[in-house]
Amino acid sequence: MARVPQAHLDARRQQIVAGARRCFTRNGFHATSMQDVFKETGLSTGAVYRYFSSKEELIQAVAVEAFTAMRGAFADAVRDAPVRPLDEVLSSVLSAALSEQATRAGAEDTRAFARLILQVWSETLRSESLAATLQQGYDDLRAVWADLVRTYQAAGQLPVDVPTDHVVRTLMALAQGFVVQQALLGDASSEMLRNGLHTLMTADLDADPQSVR
Amino acid sequence: MARVPQAHLDARRQQIVAGARRCFTRNGFHATSMQDVFKETGLSTGAVYRYFSSKEELIQAVAVEAFTAMRGAFADAVRDAPVRPLDEVLSSVLSAALSEQATRAGAEDTRAFARLILQVWSETLRSESLAATLQQGYDDLRAVWADLVRTYQAAGQLPVDVPTDHVVRTLMALAQGFVVQQALLGDASSEMLRNGLHTLMTADLDADPQSVR
Repeated sequence: MARVPQAHLDARRQQIVAGARRCFTRNGFHATSMQDVFKETGLSTGAVYRYFSSKEELIQAVAVEAFTAMRGAFADAVRDAPVRPLDEVLSSVLSAALSEQATRAGAEDTRAFARLILQVWSETLRSESLAATLQQGYDDLRAVWADLVRTYQAAGQLPVDVPTDHVVRTLMALAQGFVVQQALLGDASSEMLRNGLHTLMTADLDADPQSVR
Repeated sequence: MARVPQAHLDARRQQIVAGARRCFTRNGFHATSMQDVFKETGLSTGAVYRYFSSKEELIQAVAVEAFTAMRGAFADAVRDAPVRPLDEVLSSVLSAALSEQATRAGAEDTRAFARLILQVWSETLRSESLAATLQQGYDDLRAVWADLVRTYQAAGQLPVDVPTDHVVRTLMALAQGFVVQQALLGDASSEMLRNGLHTLMTADLDADPQSVR
């Protein structure tokens, strides 16, 4: 058998992941069958199974790509920080990354992709290997976000009196909650997150409540 | 047939919801059958079906109770605000409410209950009535949180230059993301959220990055 060039194998793999992402985003993870993926990619059973032996492996590949894209987007943001304020960076990078994933999934808006993320989270309760993939993805993201937080700390914009990871986890919670709201309510906007975060970051915890009352 | 007192009907309904919550939290929503609920509550098929015609109705009842408890906890917090700082209020009320729900569900820690929340969110994609229940639950919570935010604004601790709802949605995202992390990673702590939020609320957005570099 003739040797198939690696570039060709990679491209084929990409093609399958892209087709699976479209199916999952359009119909949800559970309602998608391997048959749907064959049809969407226009590939034969054998061609797909050569790369992925199950739907679970496909959703893992989709998740890994999403994490890689998110990590890349925030790594780019570290370069702009701290001249761009954190509230702007977090809200714009997050919504741009979500939009990009949604577009690549063939979705008209980010809601369908946010819903897929919810399903992936929920699916980790049934699949240990998916849970491990997400754990790794979040660990990698945390490292990049720690760089981001440290940049703002070095610039004197964020205090350094608590563990960096607590700040990272809090920002990560904001991003995850934004996805939850986009999935459930469909109206989470970048502006909403930027405004809300800006309000928190311009709070005055020392204001005396009695003096105003 | 003798008329059954309302108090008795309510108590029986409560007993069923409590049993269902224990089953869902222990084994997950999908792996729980109506038979499991009959066994857990020690009630007959007929006794349970008199109140709930499906697993979907049971999970809705569990969700409504969780929202009611969460709303009550934050309504109480409005009374203490703004003397207690927002970072402390949000982190402590949220983790206390989660712990209470977990205890009521017979779980040893909050992770199992957080996982149930993830499943409920994901299940809204398949059930319109559950989606409507959650929409209503979040709308009600938003109203209570808006009271909380306005209290801090009135005390001069939070600026008033953006729509209150944007701040509410941002705090809600924090809470939801905290649940996501507790479900997926299992180590989200009240301290982590308080520290992270405190850091954001003591930020100095006006610090000049150039002067430190």
